[in-house]
Amino acid sequence: MNAFTKTYNTYRALVDQRLHSIVRKAEPASLYEPMKYILSSSGKRIRPILIMLSCKAAGGTAKEALHAATAIEIMHNFTLVHDDIMDHAESRRGKPTVHTKWDENVAILVGDELIAYAYRELLKTESKAISRIADVFTDGVVEVCEGQAYDKEFETVKDITIDDYLLMISKKTGKLFAVSAEIGALIGGATERETRALRSYGNFLGRAFQIQDDLLDITADEKEFGKKIGGDILEGKKTFLLLRAAERAAGKDKKLIENILRKKKISCATIPAVKEIYERYGILELARNAVDRDIRQANIQLEKLRAGTAAEMLYKFSHWVLNRNF
Amino acid sequence: MNAFTKTYNTYRALVDQRLHSIVRKAEPASLYEPMKYILSSSGKRIRPILIMLSCKAAGGTAKEALHAATAIEIMHNFTLVHDDIMDHAESRRGKPTVHTKWDENVAILVGDELIAYAYRELLKTESKAISRIADVFTDGVVEVCEGQAYDKEFETVKDITIDDYLLMISKKTGKLFAVSAEIGALIGGATERETRALRSYGNFLGRAFQIQDDLLDITADEKEFGKKIGGDILEGKKTFLLLRAAERAAGKDKKLIENILRKKKISCATIPAVKEIYERYGILELARNAVDRDIRQANIQLEKLRAGTAAEMLYKFSHWVLNRNF
Repeated sequence: MNAFTKTYNTYRALVDQRLHSIVRKAEPASLYEPMKYILSSSGKRIRPILIMLSCKAAGGTAKEALHAATAIEIMHNFTLVHDDIMDHAESRRGKPTVHTKWDENVAILVGDELIAYAYRELLKTESKAISRIADVFTDGVVEVCEGQAYDKEFETVKDITIDDYLLMISKKTGKLFAVSAEIGALIGGATERETRALRSYGNFLGRAFQIQDDLLDITADEKEFGKKIGGDILEGKKTFLLLRAAERAAGKDKKLIENILRKKKISCATIPAVKEIYERYGILELARNAVDRDIRQANIQLEKLRAGTAAEMLYKFSHWVLNRNF
Repeated sequence: MNAFTKTYNTYRALVDQRLHSIVRKAEPASLYEPMKYILSSSGKRIRPILIMLSCKAAGGTAKEALHAATAIEIMHNFTLVHDDIMDHAESRRGKPTVHTKWDENVAILVGDELIAYAYRELLKTESKAISRIADVFTDGVVEVCEGQAYDKEFETVKDITIDDYLLMISKKTGKLFAVSAEIGALIGGATERETRALRSYGNFLGRAFQIQDDLLDITADEKEFGKKIGGDILEGKKTFLLLRAAERAAGKDKKLIENILRKKKISCATIPAVKEIYERYGILELARNAVDRDIRQANIQLEKLRAGTAAEMLYKFSHWVLNRNF
């Protein structure tokens, strides 16, 4: 096991431990059973690990950032629970979603309570910068809601451009990455320059992560990915790939892509047909280049940090995001 | 206009002004239009006024408490938006609810964003006790969610007792009143004894307020109340009145009450029939006595405060809650 994997696993275990022990109440059962269910489900814990690595890179310790790291993961889980209601998603991380296993009312309340739990956990952070940290955190929640609102709006708008898409994912995904890196920086006592660099690092990394997610939907191994391959296509989701294909494809191919954008005539046979179009028009390569470019931009930010093994870990973190297959 | 009404109106105008100007963004419209809609709708602003009066009674000024007062009203509005989804309520304060005017997804997101806005506003409070204030606020959100979870659980449980009901309303209504009074105390720089007294005052006042609400459902003037008279009966809602009637009524009367508790055979004719039962078995008097008792208990707490016009205002506030007809 290399040094990065070891660190990653150690940090993830710390966050998991905290998440699993945070709900101490049992009643009302309709609230606390699903709370325990969602917080004990597995996850990559990318955002908390980003907080902990950023804190260390700024001169702090990973443990100082543990409450904030746990808080961002709880906040991320709130977005999953509520987004899954809105998207009518039946499963998540291989398990039934909260509104499927219980009902929508339960899922609404669980999401709400997760927000409160996230703040409670965040505010346990001992830092002179706690008030700024709380503001950054709140800005994150606000933008994530904005991102989700755009995402839902885009479902019924015909002419979504790549720019619309990039704005949406910078809010829905990029922002919580940027917030994580910035909060880590603030807890670790970073200079303003380092704080800005880490925030920007998080932003680029988040965008790369989301485009990579769009790519994995069509290129991943179903077992490793934990989701059905081609799911985005079946849902007619306006992803980086589909929007770029709409720009590039012509004739019959363009017609097929436009049908998917309008959620028309989609079947299982559509998945291989679209994959073939993606390959023929170089869409997969376009997406890979976009991810590469963002990762390079992210890494450039790291040059502004003090040198050391902690900054090294962030390069490895980018590399891991770039090469992940789940 | 007496001194209390003048103070009440002044404070309410301050809170309204802040609420109306707090949303500065326009995009995404699916989020910010309903945000503005809900925050510009009128309301009694009881919780914010309680914060401001408590702050003054503890030696502070009403203005110092304005951010926290606005925050608690935003938080209260979040609970209304999400509860209205869960209760399938079509109108609120004489206007269509958010999920009726837009849709459920919009209402979920608006509620979420309101929580973030509430924290943002709360954390603008300048106070040495800000970290404790934030903890008290968060405990409030958690208990309000618990109260709502119990409320929904009780809908399908047959044998709800008055004790179950009192636990539920102490969480769903009492807690935010207690939190308001306590936060006001903390901002005003109250002693520990005063803080405890104000928290307890809020708790009793909140319970009185809720039982009064149950009473008004059957005794109020429809126009002044702003809700349909007998609405709780039509919904088969387990209120203080209905649960007490279930204990006291006999024979045919008991059968009728039990049908309502099971949401069976309810029609418009049920409302006058139930009102007659409430009168015959002394249920309305029982409820009025319960409200009186809580208000007296609340007022006893006020004796522990430093004397002055601010404490006097809180007595008048209790009196107003007791005698309100809307």
